[in-house]
Amino acid sequence: MDSMPTATGPRAGEAGGEQGRAVPPRPTNPMVTPLLTDLYQFTMTYAYWKAGKHQDRAVFDLYFRKNPFGGEYTVFGGLEECIRFIANFKFEVDDISFLRSVMPTCEDGFFEYLKAINCKDVEVYAIPEGSVVFPKIPLMRIEGPVAVVQLLETPFINLVNYASLVTTNAARHRLVSGKSKTLLEFGLRRAQGPDGGISASRCCYMGGFDATSNVAAGRLFGLPLRGTHSHAFVSSYMGPDEITDKALCRRDGSSTCQDFVSLVQTWLSKIQVMKSGVPNFCAVALALSDMGYKAIGIRLDSGDLAYLSTVARKFFCAIEEEFGVLDFGKMSITASNDLNEETIDALNKQGHEIDAFGIGTYLVTCYAQAALGCVFKLVEINNQPRIKLSEDVTKVSIPCKKRCYRLYGREGYPLVDIMTGDNEPPPKVGERILCRHPFSESKRAYVVPQNVEELLKCYWPGNSGISPPRSDVHNGTTSAELPSLKKSRERCLQQLEQMRPDHMRRLNPTPYKVSVSAKLYDYIHFLWLNEAPVGELQ
Amino acid sequence: MDSMPTATGPRAGEAGGEQGRAVPPRPTNPMVTPLLTDLYQFTMTYAYWKAGKHQDRAVFDLYFRKNPFGGEYTVFGGLEECIRFIANFKFEVDDISFLRSVMPTCEDGFFEYLKAINCKDVEVYAIPEGSVVFPKIPLMRIEGPVAVVQLLETPFINLVNYASLVTTNAARHRLVSGKSKTLLEFGLRRAQGPDGGISASRCCYMGGFDATSNVAAGRLFGLPLRGTHSHAFVSSYMGPDEITDKALCRRDGSSTCQDFVSLVQTWLSKIQVMKSGVPNFCAVALALSDMGYKAIGIRLDSGDLAYLSTVARKFFCAIEEEFGVLDFGKMSITASNDLNEETIDALNKQGHEIDAFGIGTYLVTCYAQAALGCVFKLVEINNQPRIKLSEDVTKVSIPCKKRCYRLYGREGYPLVDIMTGDNEPPPKVGERILCRHPFSESKRAYVVPQNVEELLKCYWPGNSGISPPRSDVHNGTTSAELPSLKKSRERCLQQLEQMRPDHMRRLNPTPYKVSVSAKLYDYIHFLWLNEAPVGELQ
Repeated sequence: MDSMPTATGPRAGEAGGEQGRAVPPRPTNPMVTPLLTDLYQFTMTYAYWKAGKHQDRAVFDLYFRKNPFGGEYTVFGGLEECIRFIANFKFEVDDISFLRSVMPTCEDGFFEYLKAINCKDVEVYAIPEGSVVFPKIPLMRIEGPVAVVQLLETPFINLVNYASLVTTNAARHRLVSGKSKTLLEFGLRRAQGPDGGISASRCCYMGGFDATSNVAAGRLFGLPLRGTHSHAFVSSYMGPDEITDKALCRRDGSSTCQDFVSLVQTWLSKIQVMKSGVPNFCAVALALSDMGYKAIGIRLDSGDLAYLSTVARKFFCAIEEEFGVLDFGKMSITASNDLNEETIDALNKQGHEIDAFGIGTYLVTCYAQAALGCVFKLVEINNQPRIKLSEDVTKVSIPCKKRCYRLYGREGYPLVDIMTGDNEPPPKVGERILCRHPFSESKRAYVVPQNVEELLKCYWPGNSGISPPRSDVHNGTTSAELPSLKKSRERCLQQLEQMRPDHMRRLNPTPYKVSVSAKLYDYIHFLWLNEAPVGELQ
Repeated sequence: MDSMPTATGPRAGEAGGEQGRAVPPRPTNPMVTPLLTDLYQFTMTYAYWKAGKHQDRAVFDLYFRKNPFGGEYTVFGGLEECIRFIANFKFEVDDISFLRSVMPTCEDGFFEYLKAINCKDVEVYAIPEGSVVFPKIPLMRIEGPVAVVQLLETPFINLVNYASLVTTNAARHRLVSGKSKTLLEFGLRRAQGPDGGISASRCCYMGGFDATSNVAAGRLFGLPLRGTHSHAFVSSYMGPDEITDKALCRRDGSSTCQDFVSLVQTWLSKIQVMKSGVPNFCAVALALSDMGYKAIGIRLDSGDLAYLSTVARKFFCAIEEEFGVLDFGKMSITASNDLNEETIDALNKQGHEIDAFGIGTYLVTCYAQAALGCVFKLVEINNQPRIKLSEDVTKVSIPCKKRCYRLYGREGYPLVDIMTGDNEPPPKVGERILCRHPFSESKRAYVVPQNVEELLKCYWPGNSGISPPRSDVHNGTTSAELPSLKKSRERCLQQLEQMRPDHMRRLNPTPYKVSVSAKLYDYIHFLWLNEAPVGELQ
């Protein structure tokens, strides 16, 4: 269809592509435009403009407060789409006309201002996509003119929230399934809309899935495609008589079997001992084997999957032994039918012979927890720190433009993430550093890191080819290219493996520690006391 | 952005537009193309083609098995997007090239066949969008060449599942809030992707919401837009000194106040008796009132919303009385902060003074149940009925091409939905008809309908302007135009009101009855016994 713009992202093979991209392409979904935002962003932008504050330099942090799914980790997704979005951020004439109709009392000058907006004065620092991340640590730090950055809030959160949630869900499914299993994402039909389906396929691959059934996503992101068949296909046949062309050529072309159906039936008569579809499959597989082909395997889509997979495996092994068909016992068994983390865990405990899991509804709709609550908070304006206070301490924001580091211990595990003020010297390998809980006075620990990783890298402007890296601005911070999806997937799997196992277990995981430097701690509490009203008990 | 195709659906004003549309426009989301489907649809299509079965005339039903959210009703959404999809169904050259790369062993003839596919031989019968619907009754009946209809399965389910789920969720929020409250959809940032946000805004409006914060959806569907402001806007000011232009012209232009900030502070000194933002708001509102403007209201976004709304209302009323400002006591109070059906129900029980609810996360992600399980089952091929059997009786499909009716009782309430064979005479007003539970022998009842409504109407081909209505095919069934969104919203609200209240209550609702005719019942059980294997207990 010509409504699928060819500009829509990389096509087949991208996931395997290794080279950085010169110009970020448009957002994958053409509906991601500067109008995809909340009305109040425009009314606030107007108010900033009207007050002459629109150019005030602001720093916003995008972060979440709580890990999803009762776990103690999250995987960050959605960065590439954010960068694509700001790289192409521009109001079209139609957009402006629409906004005029929505805000009829605003001056022409405001719409002239909107028309001229782009993101060349915006800087985006972010943790690389596919990284394991934790609450309170900014996933992204966005700096720029306050009115412009305000317009980015809603689309950025929209693009990050679901992507991170579903990537995390995929990673959890990978961890519970184990490395050796094949994981197939079959969620398109149950996803929350077409885009839920397409972005889920990308994110699930990043989180450790092997393939998807979603053809459009396969094309857009170069994902491996896999599928089975539906019941309708079987029941569209009234019986074997409907098969008119019964001939099958040998795989090597050397001869043709004129009646492959009879060949199958001959095999069936030799093996039909159980009331199930398995002998039918085996008869076809054996007849195919006679002709030089190798059947792929079976899918179990209902019933007791652990039991049925064990029975099927025994049957396959018995056939291998009885008829001497090499590797018949290793025939692939795929299971589906409302699978999720819990059911896979239960299957593992029972014991099973399943090679591949096809997972749909629970994976892509994140049924166990359908939303992640990323927020976008002002932490500094015109070099003045801003703090958001709340009676609920988990809602207090951490002020100031910050740097973030991950400190690694002797055994290679990450020990703690630490935030510092932008101008503090970075933690050094081998030097003792005090890590403090941001809000709790008594929680603090000294750490001597064996390795220090700076988490936030500059993605915009950066080595993107659109604007030159501005070394004066992000001096000392690594400029970063958007990696290929395959690289992000490798990063994700590698980081999941690198975490201390007690943070990752399903039951009662240990929280990973997130801290601030002593200096930032003091500053937070100085601001807090200064700004918090003193209550009166009545 | 020019990546937002102008072909993407109607723009502003559509929701209010009344005239039928000649040619269904493209799907709202340009990503909805024939490739947005599962791989197995293509492999099955290939198998149908290879077996020469691809033109076999098939009938599929799209239906769901269980109402969501623990309720006993569902609202159907997503039909218009399905019709837009098939009206524009065509493989582009690029699509075919991609499919060749995915299925390299398939013959050229197959790809030639795909290239030529369109939906002119497909018929779609459906219940009108916005209708209250029930399990087992087909929401859509799709007839056509088996290979083509198979390709529609995944996109149709994708487009209907989430749309129906979120429309239902919106309707439930409307029912619990009551007719007089203003309901605002604020979900974009937490939605499952950009499309989740955009289609949610449309569906929530259809389900009874009044407005959305989502500007893009406002433009696409002509939805009313509403918003408040964020904490960042407040905290972007270090203090009132930053307001440099303090002048405000009277609303009628008759004079100018040179220092509006002082006017506010004067008011504030008169009313500052409580530690909250309310006096600040009131001071601004009173100063605005002095200048001939009317403030809109306040938003409560945290704390005890019932209590705070009552306190704020009292404060507004006291100001009206003390300063004689007309209608100040009626100032609008909007509440938000993780609201959902349960919290609104609890607020109602406590008593509150809230006029409008802003609802986001729980609404658009359908947090209470993130997926609806629509299925797409073959019920007839080449005039032969097909049944899907399962050990789980809720998974047995109801075979045959069917007609569906809603029977109304004396008091105007719908009593029961009934499915009949396609060739049975329709139920008649005033004539006794036996309604049977499709699977349970003992559950049956005679009904004398006071009104009979045929549920499935022909939407494709139809009065769409693309193909003439084929009266020979859908003889006796009303041809239908896609109604405007506003009409679908009216239908939804009218149908919700028409239901017997015990079906609609939140706690222990009575299931609405879904039945089959005596003739269809007998036929189902004849097929069932014929096809089900007789088990052996071992």
